[in-house]
Amino acid sequence: MASNKTVGAGLPEPTHTLLLSGNDVEQKRDEILNYFTQTWALYESLFDCLANERAYFTKAISLRHPLIFYFGHTATFYINKLMAAGLIEDRIDPHIEAMLAIGVDEMSWDDLDTSHYDWPALAELRDYRGKVHRRIIEFIKEMPLSLPIDWESPAWVILMGIEHERIHLETSSVLMRQLPVEWLQPQPHWPACQRARTDRTAAPENTLVSLPETTLTLGKTDDTYGWDNEYGRLDCDIKAFKASKMLVSNAEFYEFVQAGGYQDPQWWDEEGQGWLSFSKAEMPTFWVGAASKPAILKLRLLAEEVPMPWDWPVEVNQLEAAAFCRWKAEDTGKSIQLPTEAEWYVLRQQVEGDQPGWDQAPGNINLAWWASSCPVDRFPQGDFYDIVGNVWQWTTTPISGFDGFKVHPLYDDFSTPTFDGKHAIIKGGSWISTGNEALKSSRYAFRRHFFQHAGFRYVVSTHQEKLTVNPYETDLLVSQYLDFQYGPRYFNVPNYARALVDIAEQVVEKRGSALDIGCATGRASFELARTFDQVTGMDYSARFIDVALSLVRGEERRYLMPEEGELVQYCQASLSEIGITPEQAKRVQFVQGDACNLKPHSESYDLVLASNLLDRLRDPRRFLHDISAKIVSGGVLIISSPYTWLEEFTPKENWIGGVRENGEALSSYQALQRLLDGDFEEINPPLDVPFVIRETARKHQHTVAQVTVWRKR
Amino acid sequence: MASNKTVGAGLPEPTHTLLLSGNDVEQKRDEILNYFTQTWALYESLFDCLANERAYFTKAISLRHPLIFYFGHTATFYINKLMAAGLIEDRIDPHIEAMLAIGVDEMSWDDLDTSHYDWPALAELRDYRGKVHRRIIEFIKEMPLSLPIDWESPAWVILMGIEHERIHLETSSVLMRQLPVEWLQPQPHWPACQRARTDRTAAPENTLVSLPETTLTLGKTDDTYGWDNEYGRLDCDIKAFKASKMLVSNAEFYEFVQAGGYQDPQWWDEEGQGWLSFSKAEMPTFWVGAASKPAILKLRLLAEEVPMPWDWPVEVNQLEAAAFCRWKAEDTGKSIQLPTEAEWYVLRQQVEGDQPGWDQAPGNINLAWWASSCPVDRFPQGDFYDIVGNVWQWTTTPISGFDGFKVHPLYDDFSTPTFDGKHAIIKGGSWISTGNEALKSSRYAFRRHFFQHAGFRYVVSTHQEKLTVNPYETDLLVSQYLDFQYGPRYFNVPNYARALVDIAEQVVEKRGSALDIGCATGRASFELARTFDQVTGMDYSARFIDVALSLVRGEERRYLMPEEGELVQYCQASLSEIGITPEQAKRVQFVQGDACNLKPHSESYDLVLASNLLDRLRDPRRFLHDISAKIVSGGVLIISSPYTWLEEFTPKENWIGGVRENGEALSSYQALQRLLDGDFEEINPPLDVPFVIRETARKHQHTVAQVTVWRKR
Repeated sequence: MASNKTVGAGLPEPTHTLLLSGNDVEQKRDEILNYFTQTWALYESLFDCLANERAYFTKAISLRHPLIFYFGHTATFYINKLMAAGLIEDRIDPHIEAMLAIGVDEMSWDDLDTSHYDWPALAELRDYRGKVHRRIIEFIKEMPLSLPIDWESPAWVILMGIEHERIHLETSSVLMRQLPVEWLQPQPHWPACQRARTDRTAAPENTLVSLPETTLTLGKTDDTYGWDNEYGRLDCDIKAFKASKMLVSNAEFYEFVQAGGYQDPQWWDEEGQGWLSFSKAEMPTFWVGAASKPAILKLRLLAEEVPMPWDWPVEVNQLEAAAFCRWKAEDTGKSIQLPTEAEWYVLRQQVEGDQPGWDQAPGNINLAWWASSCPVDRFPQGDFYDIVGNVWQWTTTPISGFDGFKVHPLYDDFSTPTFDGKHAIIKGGSWISTGNEALKSSRYAFRRHFFQHAGFRYVVSTHQEKLTVNPYETDLLVSQYLDFQYGPRYFNVPNYARALVDIAEQVVEKRGSALDIGCATGRASFELARTFDQVTGMDYSARFIDVALSLVRGEERRYLMPEEGELVQYCQASLSEIGITPEQAKRVQFVQGDACNLKPHSESYDLVLASNLLDRLRDPRRFLHDISAKIVSGGVLIISSPYTWLEEFTPKENWIGGVRENGEALSSYQALQRLLDGDFEEINPPLDVPFVIRETARKHQHTVAQVTVWRKR
Repeated sequence: MASNKTVGAGLPEPTHTLLLSGNDVEQKRDEILNYFTQTWALYESLFDCLANERAYFTKAISLRHPLIFYFGHTATFYINKLMAAGLIEDRIDPHIEAMLAIGVDEMSWDDLDTSHYDWPALAELRDYRGKVHRRIIEFIKEMPLSLPIDWESPAWVILMGIEHERIHLETSSVLMRQLPVEWLQPQPHWPACQRARTDRTAAPENTLVSLPETTLTLGKTDDTYGWDNEYGRLDCDIKAFKASKMLVSNAEFYEFVQAGGYQDPQWWDEEGQGWLSFSKAEMPTFWVGAASKPAILKLRLLAEEVPMPWDWPVEVNQLEAAAFCRWKAEDTGKSIQLPTEAEWYVLRQQVEGDQPGWDQAPGNINLAWWASSCPVDRFPQGDFYDIVGNVWQWTTTPISGFDGFKVHPLYDDFSTPTFDGKHAIIKGGSWISTGNEALKSSRYAFRRHFFQHAGFRYVVSTHQEKLTVNPYETDLLVSQYLDFQYGPRYFNVPNYARALVDIAEQVVEKRGSALDIGCATGRASFELARTFDQVTGMDYSARFIDVALSLVRGEERRYLMPEEGELVQYCQASLSEIGITPEQAKRVQFVQGDACNLKPHSESYDLVLASNLLDRLRDPRRFLHDISAKIVSGGVLIISSPYTWLEEFTPKENWIGGVRENGEALSSYQALQRLLDGDFEEINPPLDVPFVIRETARKHQHTVAQVTVWRKR
């Protein structure tokens, strides 16, 4: 396989992504230097394809800056990240570094970036790139380096700059395909594949290949640079499915076009219909001509238009790919759809090794063959073709972090804005995917309407993508409570929920059922479930209950914590992190309820824990009265409160204590003794239990609650 | 002296205030029991003077409850305090104990208590008193007791109840004098003095007696129960002065009345004129008849009217006494005025011993002689008469706590509401002053328009009463800062100002001048003054500067800290408590100023400390720019901040850090390095210094500031 490699027809020797570990520091420094200069040169050489300055300064699509921005951007990125990391002290050009810092994320198709930019002249940017090039080489030569390179290494910042530039190598090549062809000039060092079947009927027929049920663990473990979203771990059980042997070719996709697929809303979901109505698309975006005249259709490549290569993979967005699948499913009666990310990994088991170890690329990837797609039956890989390479393959999976995901602090907006449920993962890489992009572990995601060098293969699968949106919780109160209940210790103060449950476990013998009333995001409920048979977590706030329920489902909750000014920290909470098993979690039932209006359940509990509840109720006396009936004789009521009475929560006439009665100070503790005296016996001296709620990186609420323990008579 | 003691004419044997210490616990228990029952019986016997129920249920004056309230009140007080202290578990009668709990403080003369009260019947209250009497005896017999009795002893609560009843013995007797005389019935066990000169010209002539300059320390140190305001310590230097040998008699005061003193506003201060115009007074309140007909004037005693005893002390409020002094000063050309509290203590040196040790009372006090005043020349005491006894003597001194004053938590509204600059101290006691009231250390104070069995003696003195109002600071922010800067440690976190000055002292060699910018209530300024020659404390808030200035003057600042709900803690701050000497304090100059608009002083400093300032400025960049010119070359700038940027204080565009710049996170520390780089060298790695600001008894802000240290180039 891969016998007639065309390198030498112009493309430079393919690069290998470098390994983070090694024994020889200076050798590694040389590797980094080479990898940097290779990437830099490759990126600049791509811009040779632009025929004129107009091509630099005109937007290819409304949602992105013109190419002049990207020409400078990859250089400014090095300087901005090195400045942010405190690794260099001086800028090269503050103006350029400010202007070319922030790209435009792909948004909805009808968003318009109407800002006016006064872009620098090309010569100015060439000069600037020269200066940055020298500065980075100097930096690489002088930076402290120890092996393996890790997140904290200065070299990681350099690798980040290199891999960032390699991403823009690909995305800029897409933007070039979207410019008028006359603004481009084909270059011998960016050669297109010459092999193509221009007779539609000659295109190979696709078939389905079966794959057995598989268990896989996703998450990067290899020894190369990765973006933060690649790390972590996800265990997957993938049911048996079938997958198309080849990517869908232009010919195969034409059947959908011919069948009026672009005109029939039934194949399109709501987002797809919206895009269709906005774009007025009638065929794939890189097709040139009219869908009704297939014989004279052309395909737009990087710098030229060629007669339609019907056996090359079709390039579409995810909306078009999904529409094709629906049509095909209807047509065949099979549950045809796009694969999940995990299903792609099942396919990927058919390909040996990974890019750093490839002697020769097993597919049209890593710029190892051409500067274009090639026939879908050109590169067999196991029982399939093009599992990697040729064009990216859309999946149904919205991108999200794996369990244990942590944001890289130096590029905290690389992944997190895409964890919005709207960005679908693409897998496999294209002909121009190099470096990290060409790795098995790489994960990129785009809005479903967006174009890349991306097509698809379909699967026959019963999978149903959980369209769970798991974005960062931005509700400040929910975030604060997640951090309070699941986050780290501050000032060495032990976890409050755990401390309260420790007390409960000392005084409650019968561990039948427990009620955690005012459970917030549920930590104490889960802690109780370690030893109680049944736990009810109740809170007035549905927002909290939703969070607790998602934790029961095994989800990881992400939240943002204010750090300093507008800067935030990305955090996560999950039951596995606190060592709660799914069985334990299942013992907890979370319900929304009002502690001041308890429903007359038949149920009563061996323990009721009311933590940080009393002084947030509008009628705490009523709660204290009603709760008695919910506790079995001999059962225990634990009340923990800092007695922070505020009229905002409790009308002053309802404060049980912290008031003057007959002119005398009546503390809340005295009031509790009086109110509970009839039904309860106080069995412990009151305890002080501290807790800390973090507000920013440096500011915290540090409170000492009083815990009183009462046994029902 | 005091040879013809009249006890036996009806008054019971005088009591002695009991000592707190002793060797025999059970003997002390008996003493307490006796003291309680004596007081209780004495109080009830006073009410024998009321002739009918109308006398119980009609208000004597609009500002106070009717006597029925006071009849029950002293009993409910025991129960309410014992409940509040958690020493008893059950009430005797919740309704009565709620209704008779709170008296009406003497207010302005035109305040009216218009509440409707449904007072209990007399028989009901008699029954109630009986129950309380039995309960308290039982309590005294059973209470844990160890010697000496202190603030925490259960016995202290009993003594509080006893002394409280003795106060009301006196104030109720005043109210009885203010009821129509026909509602009273003279009782043989409340005998008035029979000795009186009813011929005005026969009244003894007053003279002035000289007293030398004296140094005294005020503040209770004896071994008896005291109210919280008596404790603490005040060192006084009292210049030489003269004092009237006798109290001002009715005859002597008549000269002022005759001279038209009540009609001439020049003798009355503003408050006096207001009272005069409201009351339409033309002569002292207990005089009966017309000022123009002195021959037939009578004097109202407790239960009768008697022909005017011209040689008895006149009874007036402080406004009348002060008016008399002004008139007398004009008349004589001498600086006649009322004495200060300290001047009274100079006089008090002429009287040996104190009430607990008296075999026979040296004056008309402690109910040792009569149930009325007596002639002003009846009881010689040293070179004077009536330094103690006969009637209370008004001073010019507004009551306030001595240095080190602490509120007794079980009666925290006994003293503190009178620390308002409007309550003048009375000294010396009257014929009915017993128990604590009869002690040298006792301190009572009333609004200046109020009547007691009180008159005055005058002094020729150059003293000028500092009419400093030193009430409790109720501005929450000022209180929080006083506590933050001068209060105790919380969570064992060291004082923040001191911690910062420790850092300063490590890096600043030349200790010439220092600027503490954003000094708040000045703690760091004072700490700097320990080693710097000159310190400027600057703050934008005049409220803070006022506090700092008063501390420089040696004043104690009192403030309230929220404790729980509406309950507060009474706190105080002073330089002596933190070991700052007056010389050190004088090195500090406090000025109001704007850190974002620094005046171009010629001055520059060896040290500028900017603590918790940066993130509260509207333009921190300007401050960082301007401050450079204020620091000598080689001088040091210390910035301490938690970088809590809030738009409330700093418009977002002015945040120096905690922002994204060119898409990269820019921390405030990085921003500081950049902004200060030109003029400064960073000479220390940044330090984390924690601080705690208490919000309630259980809730705190716990913050970790970053301290950066910069040397001016």
